[in-house]
Amino acid sequence: MSTALTPVLDRIDQDLPQALVRLSELLRIPSISTDPAHKADVAQAADWLVNDLNTLGFDARKDATPGHPMVVAKGGAEAGPHLLFYGHYDVQPVDPLDLWHSDPFTPQIEDTPNGKVIRARGASDDKGQLMTFIEACRAWLAVHGTLPVKLTFCLEGEEESGSPSLVPYLKANAEALKADIALICDTGLFDAQTPGITTMLRGLMGDEVIIHGPARDLHSGAFGGAAMNPARVLARVLAGLHDDQGRVTLPGFYDDVPEISDDLRAQWEGLGFDAEAFLGSVGLNLPAGEAGRSALEMIWSRPTCEINGMISGYTGTGFKTVLPARASAKVSFRLVGQQDPHKIRAAFRDYVTAQIPADCRVEFIAHGASPASVMETGHPAFEAARQALSDEWPKPAAFVGAGGSIPIAGYFKTILGMDSMLIGFAKDDDQIHSPNEKYDLDSFHRGIRSWARIIDAVSKA
Amino acid sequence: MSTALTPVLDRIDQDLPQALVRLSELLRIPSISTDPAHKADVAQAADWLVNDLNTLGFDARKDATPGHPMVVAKGGAEAGPHLLFYGHYDVQPVDPLDLWHSDPFTPQIEDTPNGKVIRARGASDDKGQLMTFIEACRAWLAVHGTLPVKLTFCLEGEEESGSPSLVPYLKANAEALKADIALICDTGLFDAQTPGITTMLRGLMGDEVIIHGPARDLHSGAFGGAAMNPARVLARVLAGLHDDQGRVTLPGFYDDVPEISDDLRAQWEGLGFDAEAFLGSVGLNLPAGEAGRSALEMIWSRPTCEINGMISGYTGTGFKTVLPARASAKVSFRLVGQQDPHKIRAAFRDYVTAQIPADCRVEFIAHGASPASVMETGHPAFEAARQALSDEWPKPAAFVGAGGSIPIAGYFKTILGMDSMLIGFAKDDDQIHSPNEKYDLDSFHRGIRSWARIIDAVSKA
Repeated sequence: MSTALTPVLDRIDQDLPQALVRLSELLRIPSISTDPAHKADVAQAADWLVNDLNTLGFDARKDATPGHPMVVAKGGAEAGPHLLFYGHYDVQPVDPLDLWHSDPFTPQIEDTPNGKVIRARGASDDKGQLMTFIEACRAWLAVHGTLPVKLTFCLEGEEESGSPSLVPYLKANAEALKADIALICDTGLFDAQTPGITTMLRGLMGDEVIIHGPARDLHSGAFGGAAMNPARVLARVLAGLHDDQGRVTLPGFYDDVPEISDDLRAQWEGLGFDAEAFLGSVGLNLPAGEAGRSALEMIWSRPTCEINGMISGYTGTGFKTVLPARASAKVSFRLVGQQDPHKIRAAFRDYVTAQIPADCRVEFIAHGASPASVMETGHPAFEAARQALSDEWPKPAAFVGAGGSIPIAGYFKTILGMDSMLIGFAKDDDQIHSPNEKYDLDSFHRGIRSWARIIDAVSKA
Repeated sequence: MSTALTPVLDRIDQDLPQALVRLSELLRIPSISTDPAHKADVAQAADWLVNDLNTLGFDARKDATPGHPMVVAKGGAEAGPHLLFYGHYDVQPVDPLDLWHSDPFTPQIEDTPNGKVIRARGASDDKGQLMTFIEACRAWLAVHGTLPVKLTFCLEGEEESGSPSLVPYLKANAEALKADIALICDTGLFDAQTPGITTMLRGLMGDEVIIHGPARDLHSGAFGGAAMNPARVLARVLAGLHDDQGRVTLPGFYDDVPEISDDLRAQWEGLGFDAEAFLGSVGLNLPAGEAGRSALEMIWSRPTCEINGMISGYTGTGFKTVLPARASAKVSFRLVGQQDPHKIRAAFRDYVTAQIPADCRVEFIAHGASPASVMETGHPAFEAARQALSDEWPKPAAFVGAGGSIPIAGYFKTILGMDSMLIGFAKDDDQIHSPNEKYDLDSFHRGIRSWARIIDAVSKA
């Protein structure tokens, strides 16, 4: 272990009670960004962070946007690797309030069967996670008076209300924000003992298909048999999207889908992912995707096609012998690797259109298109951070995937031209966005220590 | 032409203005059976009929049921064929009232491009049709003082509100109502120049399928690929119900489906059915059923399977990347010949169940099961009536089918053990159940003359 790091970790251990007091102060501020009644609270949380970062010697300020302010700060070493740290200080609304066991903005330290937790809105998402990084910096600065890396902070106040100001802000301030690599603290542990660095986020292409048949709903007695039923056409279209091996049938769909590297495969196998428990938690048993793929591959590195909704005809209680005038479905594709959402949309529409019989017409509504984010893990910071995390936690860290999308990582790539390391210490049971949100003190404590180690490791990478 | 018939037809022609006055009286009574506020009006319409039939010399009375009364009457010849005549004197509600061009219960005689019509609620369904038969009896009685057939009337007051009392009433009064053959006046002309006797009515089996997958709706990013999507299972199930020739794939589905006779096929071909116009009226062009079948066969003599409704996941505006917990569809089968609805339901459920993967379960809800009605046209009354209709109308009559069901015909068969001749003079544009219902004076006038001829022909058959 680095001689510089040891006293920093000691300092973190000693300072933990004070770190919790500081986190509690921030948690007391009800910075609900989506609710105009809390506008002043959001500003107060920004002020709290500006003040704290200035106290630590950063050059921090609140930058106005058309919505809530961005907290930006600069500091650390003059030379060495330059890191951009991203987190958000706004929180979700708290309703239904009656399901909370204690006031959402009066943080409580509680004992639970899995250890101590701090319970409050924002404890995990994202104030607790954000403060792990600030506390790591505080310890480094307290011990050494400086940091071994150059640092820029970008702390958002609109993440829970759709980030309307984020992209314009990044574009307008690209030069000031550009760094070597970004750190994003909005993710979770793989499990209670195993940290992860999210290096693959799936993209998404959503499309709505509306198949029009007869001019109006028909009586299925008078017309059934003779008239085209668009629900039948839709069923056939949707059923044909997968073959009997669970693969998507669109021509060229897998052209830009890479296999994961042997190294990554070994890391994933080492995680000992419990597919049975994962599926069991939602009442299922069997991985339902492509034959021959593991459940982890299915959600992290393989593309999908899912029917998100469909409707046609009479869907109320009882029965109505109607022959429907139209049938529609919302279909989405999770994308990986270099799959181009626009090419996939075109292939999907071609596939559907080719199956529309003479007496139907099809209409499409586009619903978003974002490519996958795949980090260039060749940058030495990735391996350095993985080693640092492995040193802190009971089990070794792995580069992991995420089935969903975290748009900020894509924006940092496309607007600021840098990769992101997504590292966080949240747990699946943190109840973010729900009543009784909490953050494990173990996540908070080891999280701070993890960042201290990462800062050290990256500075030498 | 029979010497007895000629003066009857003359009498009908002379009496037409008075017949219209009588019909208008009946139409003025707002006998909306489904609306409790109109209970007295329904009773008044029954009284009007009892009075009119008694005036004609029938032994008529109002029979109480738990709902609206049944009007029953007996009379005519002591010997000869015994006919049971069925019609209904209740009407549909009139809303939306603001779409009517004149008061629904103030009958108007109007000129239209297709000739004169009488416009009022119930003009076509079924008071106008019912009165064609009573007026034919009136003319026979006026000219000859008697009828050449024995006659029983059974006039219902609940047809437009689901006939809750009908089956118990038929069962309780089976002996009193049994006749050689029933006449049901609730159907239409094949076209303005061509009458038909409906001899085939399709049956119906309706079933609802609910496929359950995950315990709750899932995030398609977190679970998509690994978790079973029940909408995908449903699409495959529904898509497999038809082969590429439009035939239903259930094993044994066509076992009890007869081919129509050469004679019937010739009659249908003689109708010159305009499939293009039929489908064109609802924005379609091509018969969509079994390959190699005519559109008339598709709706009259071939069984079908239709998706009447389906729903799964998010179906509102916009997009939600949900992986649905369940997917459901309402599916119905129109049945012909000797197809057994219970056997078909079992075959359907077996087919569905066999396709449910390990991680899904399926639930079914039964929605009705009635076999097809196929009349024994071997009874000489059928051919006699067909000839009588052909004598009255510009084009020859045919035995025709009906895609939908008319339950009363089935009840007469199963409860009273007799076949029915379904004969009516309504036109497709009569707007029954809709605002501005009308009945063509041509339907009314030729309808009366048709029944006079049928009574004559059947008495000699």
